[in-house]
Amino acid sequence: VIYLNGNSLGALSLNVPERMADVVAREWGNGLVGSWDSNGWWDAPVRVGDRIGRLVGAAPGGVVVTDSTTVNVFKLATAARRMRPDRHRIVVDPRDFPTDRYVANAVAEGNVATTLDRDTAVVVSSHVDYASGVMKDMAAVTAEAHDAGALVLWDLSHSVGAVPLDLDGADVDLAVGCTYKYLSGGPGSPAFCYVASRLQRELDSPIPGWVGHARPFEMESGYEPDAGVRRLLTGTPSILALAALDAALDVFDGVSIDDLRAKSVALGELFIELVDERLGDTGVVVGSPREASRRGSHVSLVHPSAGKVVDALCERGVIVDFRRPDVARFGFAPLYIRFVDVWDAVDHLAAVLVSA
Amino acid sequence: VIYLNGNSLGALSLNVPERMADVVAREWGNGLVGSWDSNGWWDAPVRVGDRIGRLVGAAPGGVVVTDSTTVNVFKLATAARRMRPDRHRIVVDPRDFPTDRYVANAVAEGNVATTLDRDTAVVVSSHVDYASGVMKDMAAVTAEAHDAGALVLWDLSHSVGAVPLDLDGADVDLAVGCTYKYLSGGPGSPAFCYVASRLQRELDSPIPGWVGHARPFEMESGYEPDAGVRRLLTGTPSILALAALDAALDVFDGVSIDDLRAKSVALGELFIELVDERLGDTGVVVGSPREASRRGSHVSLVHPSAGKVVDALCERGVIVDFRRPDVARFGFAPLYIRFVDVWDAVDHLAAVLVSA
Repeated sequence: VIYLNGNSLGALSLNVPERMADVVAREWGNGLVGSWDSNGWWDAPVRVGDRIGRLVGAAPGGVVVTDSTTVNVFKLATAARRMRPDRHRIVVDPRDFPTDRYVANAVAEGNVATTLDRDTAVVVSSHVDYASGVMKDMAAVTAEAHDAGALVLWDLSHSVGAVPLDLDGADVDLAVGCTYKYLSGGPGSPAFCYVASRLQRELDSPIPGWVGHARPFEMESGYEPDAGVRRLLTGTPSILALAALDAALDVFDGVSIDDLRAKSVALGELFIELVDERLGDTGVVVGSPREASRRGSHVSLVHPSAGKVVDALCERGVIVDFRRPDVARFGFAPLYIRFVDVWDAVDHLAAVLVSA
Repeated sequence: VIYLNGNSLGALSLNVPERMADVVAREWGNGLVGSWDSNGWWDAPVRVGDRIGRLVGAAPGGVVVTDSTTVNVFKLATAARRMRPDRHRIVVDPRDFPTDRYVANAVAEGNVATTLDRDTAVVVSSHVDYASGVMKDMAAVTAEAHDAGALVLWDLSHSVGAVPLDLDGADVDLAVGCTYKYLSGGPGSPAFCYVASRLQRELDSPIPGWVGHARPFEMESGYEPDAGVRRLLTGTPSILALAALDAALDVFDGVSIDDLRAKSVALGELFIELVDERLGDTGVVVGSPREASRRGSHVSLVHPSAGKVVDALCERGVIVDFRRPDVARFGFAPLYIRFVDVWDAVDHLAAVLVSA
């Protein structure tokens, strides 16, 4: 199998099965309810959050792992609106991933726009676009939003673990991301939230769950959120899912994101070069930016029969995915995709297109 | 170990480790992204939901597994308010579990009340109280709310898997529950939502995630929720957590809830009888109803030094839990607690109280 779909579901890391067996049998089976303390379950969302923080340029205490990306966009977009109560609009790209658009629209009660103005409360934007692979200039977009008095909420789902990020350095306000793509946290692994330290104390989550309380076990009548990023926790976190993600992150230890990015760019460049050389007359068009600096870690090819092409590749063991109506995404997870995989994938693609 | 805390975190079922190893290595590791179809991941929230449906008296299509109890209370309480737009209040018991109170208060924007009237949009109530173990009369409370024109949202966290429930039969509107207590789904396992079939089409979730869309892979510009209970799905569900829960539910196959309830009642009766007989002069008071029909599956003892008593029991291998300020909860998970465990636990309790 040539797995070019790590941008949708990352591959299993070799150390994950053992860690899962241990958390199930020893921590849960033997440790029982005491593992909330003795095996660090209670602190897992912030401990694992800090590990992700290193990969996104956030100091410890900036990131917490919780809920799904969808729920996190909801919490942070709502909180952002509350921080700009005199402004009514949310800016969102109409080509952005559906959940971001649907939730932005719901939170803004229909008041979404495509351009920034003095009525914009928050800009919700994917850093790397799920379809085209376009990577935005995070620092520039953030500065532009700030100049207009708005906040920015970045969705890092297609960035984290593949491209360098510097949330603190770019003065980003809020961010979310999923962990089952380049981070290989497992199917439906929990998502994360980032909140700039300067905003944490005023951030008012719309879902004041007991786990985000300053003193959760006091069972107080009033709600006082945790002073830090824990306030974005809602209900009891899934420890099994967190354990898989935690183990998957071990693979990133000692790996520089710049090295990963260099590998990712080289894989993408080779792919585009081979597509140009060998598939020029097959009707395939490169749908992603050709400049590596404007592209994430996947390359989209546009073809009128993209769905059939993806199916035929799959039968040959080349796993990529199809995004309606006409896009085939080739994801290059830099930790485990090799140059020979790219070469072989284009061989298969050429064979498929000839018979298409 | 005598584990009387299955009402907080259910014990590990013997078949779960093997199922987890299989979902990790075979479904994720080998099946990769294709497992969303080939291994039924995409349908897991409704498939596992239907298994829970059998335990709560809901026909297939009434229950979906998703998110945490907290997030589900938020979604359903908000949706309930939207179904009663002319009413402003949410009724919630000030002694109820914190998350229900905090979220009800947030959703009602502070307009919470303790008594039902014509301004009540929804009554949010635990069926079995987390502290006292008091079990409410579901059909009667539901009918009373309906008579006042309000909806009811039941929290079944301390009921499901231990007491008989008949949501469809009691004409319940909405319910949520957690799955890591009597269902033994694992630490932080995903929660569930129930929506009466008569309300499903009008239910308007405040978090319109892409997974709850009628046609999620069409990536449409507008949001159209799934026609059924799937509309309560938000982001990508955690498959590893769902697999543990699914395996845990195997243990309930072929088991009648009435038999479980009979065992649970007998365990509780024995416990109270032994406490009365042997601990009458130790300052311990039974804080739960003595009538089995008004009690769930745990018995709370009240003692001024409850915290110390719980710690001392723990050192002796009797695991119960402490709820501030003065409650020790003894949970009798009827699937795996034996009468001898109750007997031995009271022996230890007597020894601890003598030296307290």
